[in-house]
Amino acid sequence: MHERITIWTLDWVPMRNGPAGFVRDLRLRWACEEAGLPYAVKTVPFGEGGPVHLARQPFGQVPFMSDGDLQMFESGACALHLAEKSEVLMPRDPQARAETLQWLFAALNSIEMISVPWWFLDVTGAKDNGLTGWLERRLAHMERILSARDWLAAGRFTIADLMMADVLRVAKLRDFGDRPAAEAYVTRVTDRPAFKKAHADQMAHFEAAEAAEAARGQAES
Amino acid sequence: MHERITIWTLDWVPMRNGPAGFVRDLRLRWACEEAGLPYAVKTVPFGEGGPVHLARQPFGQVPFMSDGDLQMFESGACALHLAEKSEVLMPRDPQARAETLQWLFAALNSIEMISVPWWFLDVTGAKDNGLTGWLERRLAHMERILSARDWLAAGRFTIADLMMADVLRVAKLRDFGDRPAAEAYVTRVTDRPAFKKAHADQMAHFEAAEAAEAARGQAES
Repeated sequence: MHERITIWTLDWVPMRNGPAGFVRDLRLRWACEEAGLPYAVKTVPFGEGGPVHLARQPFGQVPFMSDGDLQMFESGACALHLAEKSEVLMPRDPQARAETLQWLFAALNSIEMISVPWWFLDVTGAKDNGLTGWLERRLAHMERILSARDWLAAGRFTIADLMMADVLRVAKLRDFGDRPAAEAYVTRVTDRPAFKKAHADQMAHFEAAEAAEAARGQAES
Repeated sequence: MHERITIWTLDWVPMRNGPAGFVRDLRLRWACEEAGLPYAVKTVPFGEGGPVHLARQPFGQVPFMSDGDLQMFESGACALHLAEKSEVLMPRDPQARAETLQWLFAALNSIEMISVPWWFLDVTGAKDNGLTGWLERRLAHMERILSARDWLAAGRFTIADLMMADVLRVAKLRDFGDRPAAEAYVTRVTDRPAFKKAHADQMAHFEAAEAAEAARGQAES
């Protein structure tokens, strides 16, 4: 069949301590799985984006997406676009929609805005991570919020939970302090069949790429 | 008149080297001015949010907003909600809308996600700002993009430019490297009467608060 939706990701990533299982095409695969939207996955080469890549994603990142003739990038924007196609991800009631939007943006601009730079400083070996206190305060707010409810918006799973759980499931964040409500939340959201399918598909994609790379290396040696 | 839209900000901020002129209620004032939407401004006390504040904004930040009975927080989500009310801010054509969404999210999740933590490390006196190289690369991408066009999406001003210009106009970013296209872009966007009105109104709000504080201090001394 010809899918309207195509998600672009990388053709390969390092498997050892690499981002496999976390590359952000996962967010879009997962949204499509939740909404029952058929999609294809295509790739661009790993490494600094060339002109073709930059024409579709001007920061040289993935994912980017097509939906028929429509093209877009930014995982948050693509996730919102996909969510608009299905009430599973985006409630139609105005207050429920407002809550979903606010928590979608909160995942990206109130948590990830601190957690990803914190993670970056951590993995690049900053001696004294100057973002730790700020991150701790934000995660403490999330722990309080998630102690009082199962889902962020509208009393049920929405695109906001997809995004927040994806932000919070980063291993270093989960090991960072004792936050049982956030931990239970991440487990609750990532136990969904749509997440498991999307995650398994992404891992299979990168494992196949690694196997092909290894075979090529052997043939050349 | 009774405005449907109410924007909440802080009742006071420090004026010397403080955030006056940059508090994010500006984004919502500005969006309302662009769209011709009447709005009221209310305040919560400066400092760590109390229970009333946290009930409306769970991270103790501002702004938050009401639109009739509807309540929401996160400046990005509120800006999108306001943009949906006016074609001035959000084009109706599907590809133009997709572009506007992607650049709205890019402002918050590809630029501000690095620039605000970089700024935070800078002002809190980190000896070696580990985010500098990453920020430089992102700003170099923006310089290339803004060298080739006047507006980010749809060939005209949209909510995406409002957000990106607000992210890029931070003084420390403007002093950081020589980026004439980004500088011309910030000037172009902030020359708009709606920005000037919103900025002047925010400054007047905080200057009045400062004057009231000074008068109270004198009465007590």
